[in-house]
Amino acid sequence: MTKIAIGSRDEAAQPDCLKALVVEFITTFLFVFAGVGSAMAADKLTGDALLGLFAVAVAHALVVAATISGGHISGGHLNPAVTIGLLFGGHITVVRSILYWIIQLLASTTACLLLKYLTGGLATPVHTLASGMGYLQGVVWEIVLTFSLLFTVYATIVDPKKGSIDGQGPILTGFVVGSQHLGWWSILWSIHEPSTIIWACFGQLGLDRSLGLLGWAPYWWWACWVYL
Amino acid sequence: MTKIAIGSRDEAAQPDCLKALVVEFITTFLFVFAGVGSAMAADKLTGDALLGLFAVAVAHALVVAATISGGHISGGHLNPAVTIGLLFGGHITVVRSILYWIIQLLASTTACLLLKYLTGGLATPVHTLASGMGYLQGVVWEIVLTFSLLFTVYATIVDPKKGSIDGQGPILTGFVVGSQHLGWWSILWSIHEPSTIIWACFGQLGLDRSLGLLGWAPYWWWACWVYL
Amino acid sequence: MTKIAIGSRDEAAQPDCLKALVVEFITTFLFVFAGVGSAMAADKLTGDALLGLFAVAVAHALVVAATISGGHISGGHLNPAVTIGLLFGGHITVVRSILYWIIQLLASTTACLLLKYLTGGLATPVHTLASGMGYLQGVVWEIVLTFSLLFTVYATIVDPKKGSIDGQGPILTGFVVGSQHLGWWSILWSIHEPSTIIWACFGQLGLDRSLGLLGWAPYWWWACWVYL
Amino acid sequence: MTKIAIGSRDEAAQPDCLKALVVEFITTFLFVFAGVGSAMAADKLTGDALLGLFAVAVAHALVVAATISGGHISGGHLNPAVTIGLLFGGHITVVRSILYWIIQLLASTTACLLLKYLTGGLATPVHTLASGMGYLQGVVWEIVLTFSLLFTVYATIVDPKKGSIDGQGPILTGFVVGSQHLGWWSILWSIHEPSTIIWACFGQLGLDRSLGLLGWAPYWWWACWVYL
Repeated sequence: MTKIAIGSRDEAAQPDCLKALVVEFITTFLFVFAGVGSAMAADKLTGDALLGLFAVAVAHALVVAATISGGHISGGHLNPAVTIGLLFGGHITVVRSILYWIIQLLASTTACLLLKYLTGGLATPVHTLASGMGYLQGVVWEIVLTFSLLFTVYATIVDPKKGSIDGQGPILTGFVVGSQHLGWWSILWSIHEPSTIIWACFGQLGLDRSLGLLGWAPYWWWACWVYL
Repeated sequence: MTKIAIGSRDEAAQPDCLKALVVEFITTFLFVFAGVGSAMAADKLTGDALLGLFAVAVAHALVVAATISGGHISGGHLNPAVTIGLLFGGHITVVRSILYWIIQLLASTTACLLLKYLTGGLATPVHTLASGMGYLQGVVWEIVLTFSLLFTVYATIVDPKKGSIDGQGPILTGFVVGSQHLGWWSILWSIHEPSTIIWACFGQLGLDRSLGLLGWAPYWWWACWVYL
Repeated sequence: MTKIAIGSRDEAAQPDCLKALVVEFITTFLFVFAGVGSAMAADKLTGDALLGLFAVAVAHALVVAATISGGHISGGHLNPAVTIGLLFGGHITVVRSILYWIIQLLASTTACLLLKYLTGGLATPVHTLASGMGYLQGVVWEIVLTFSLLFTVYATIVDPKKGSIDGQGPILTGFVVGSQHLGWWSILWSIHEPSTIIWACFGQLGLDRSLGLLGWAPYWWWACWVYL
Repeated sequence: MTKIAIGSRDEAAQPDCLKALVVEFITTFLFVFAGVGSAMAADKLTGDALLGLFAVAVAHALVVAATISGGHISGGHLNPAVTIGLLFGGHITVVRSILYWIIQLLASTTACLLLKYLTGGLATPVHTLASGMGYLQGVVWEIVLTFSLLFTVYATIVDPKKGSIDGQGPILTGFVVGSQHLGWWSILWSIHEPSTIIWACFGQLGLDRSLGLLGWAPYWWWACWVYL
């Protein structure tokens, strides 16, 4: 915990910080636009739940790899959970973390509103717990998912001793996100509505993974769901 | 804008330029041949719209990665939008850009004519706006798509500060194109005819993405469609 | 054989060994959690046997690549067969191999028990020989599969003369595992129950691949199957 | 043509040549075993022709990437067409090329015979021209396919000026093979029998791609087909 750096209020005005915030906005926007878009497309185009999930998983794997790589100026966090994880490791200051959070929420919201406009008002998909899945199970599952993501980010991108795999971290992180969708999302979230098992409040408020990190995700899903 | 270099008329006769044009022809030809071919195959082989889209998306991701990499002599632009994007950044002269455009159109047309011959006269697929999708929505969507492509090219290939991801740009660009197909094309373009949602005038005239760059895509799609 | 190093009992108490064991536990846990989870999800979501197999294969390819890479501290063996293979090549001591085995079994068992809890008691899938497949055929097949895995690990990760592909070994090993599922598993194991063709005792006892290495796999499958 | 080196008869007895032949045998065997195996599996498991083709394409992409990489000692040619292509470029002697050819044919035949034994006598799939596809069209198509493969091998593996993509050649070649299957095979070869559109004489005699290189493939397919 002693590693956490506060940073200063002036940070937000520094050119390199501003540049990072712009890149973080762009990459998060592209990530959510493709990710939520793929879920909407899958929902429209097929009746096979696994095929829908598969297409969404692959879309995420591909776009995560490209946007983390493309966002090398900002680090390409893409979601608040990664930012928190890097904050606790001392790799980003508290001040900048808060700025990243705000930008990530803005980018996510912009992407979803644009998708809504472009599709003539189609609903962006909503997470709900799979039927029969209790809140505690959801919390545990979400903790494993978020841990898996952060473990990969640390081991393949942050770790200075990663050696010969240097540079492959973004692709590997995309792979993890893809395998998470294939292996885990479908059981955790409602499996009868393929489009709704992916992305929910994220699409609306960008709070998805960050809540997962805190282990309170299911409650929050529910709370958000009320307003959709 | 001040970055744009005109180049000279003599450029076309320089050996390295000629070599680049040959490679640009080959890579664009292979790209269109596989891309359009996959859309034709998907149309023939399945009744599931998402599966067709998925196969086309993966085919594009794979062939884009390989042809950009294989085209390292010319840069492997593959389509006029990338050439324009690099022109505005000062990475290619005006003269050479025009030559690239001509070559790209020739390669694309050759690939489609050859596909037509090889398949005994099957139509190459045609873009049309999805039903309920307005022209303005199409223009906005196309701008986001083209921006996404160029952002990735710049961030992962052109940027000299890309560091450890150096060399992965072509694969990452392929990933972006794959995720675009999965997430976006199906909603933007007609979703009831999977084969026709991909590639249209491109297959005929090679104008596809370049028009997207200008933001006038839907009008042009329509104009081309008339002649098909 | 002369290459095999015994190691000493003190090894288990050395900090770097402990660290490696922790990482081996984490990566094996994540690997099994995603792999078995994808088989359970595929079983639930689709009626198409090939689609189920395909999704499971891709999930494995992705998660193997990421966990081997992420586990660079321990080597990311993930299963006892790789540990044995490296033991015979003199790359790990006997003492540490035994510790790795124990950890791999614990991680695998933990992942499956957690999956059982999280899914409200769903059974983790069970390997059985495909109908019409004899024991000897199963043994031969399993030998080819395990050889293929170890060959790739040695040629792309261990070999000091691997040159320019350095760093790509984990991804390539993931690719091999994915192609194995697509090409081989479905014929070797029961093809009428997609969920049960992947992972069986592994899910219960973590003995899967190691038995394959010994060439006695089918008998052991059967022996394990009795207890499930 | 002046680049072609004859080599000497003694080559076959040199340790590095023998080592290369062993590796060429192993990688070609694993490649054919997974490739043909995936076609057999797809044929058994699904009624959807595109899904079958898709799974086979991905299996090939993955296993080609891994076996070329894993075969860095021999170069991982995997099929006679690549060997001929490298022979004409002066990268391998005539003597060694002939040895490679023999080994590739042996490995391919071994893999197919083993598959036949392991599956209890299932037929390995057979290439036939798609109905309505003429011989000349088949020859042209096969020339494009083989050119595409060799172009990628040369541009991403052989070329000493390939720069930052160094080491990615095997994966990119796998990508090309995958996109070829998705885009091209299904139209060229019989599209009503997904299992039979991939691999034919190759499975029997290992002559597949090498004939393609000569541009006489369809005739040869026919000639081989007679004997199956």
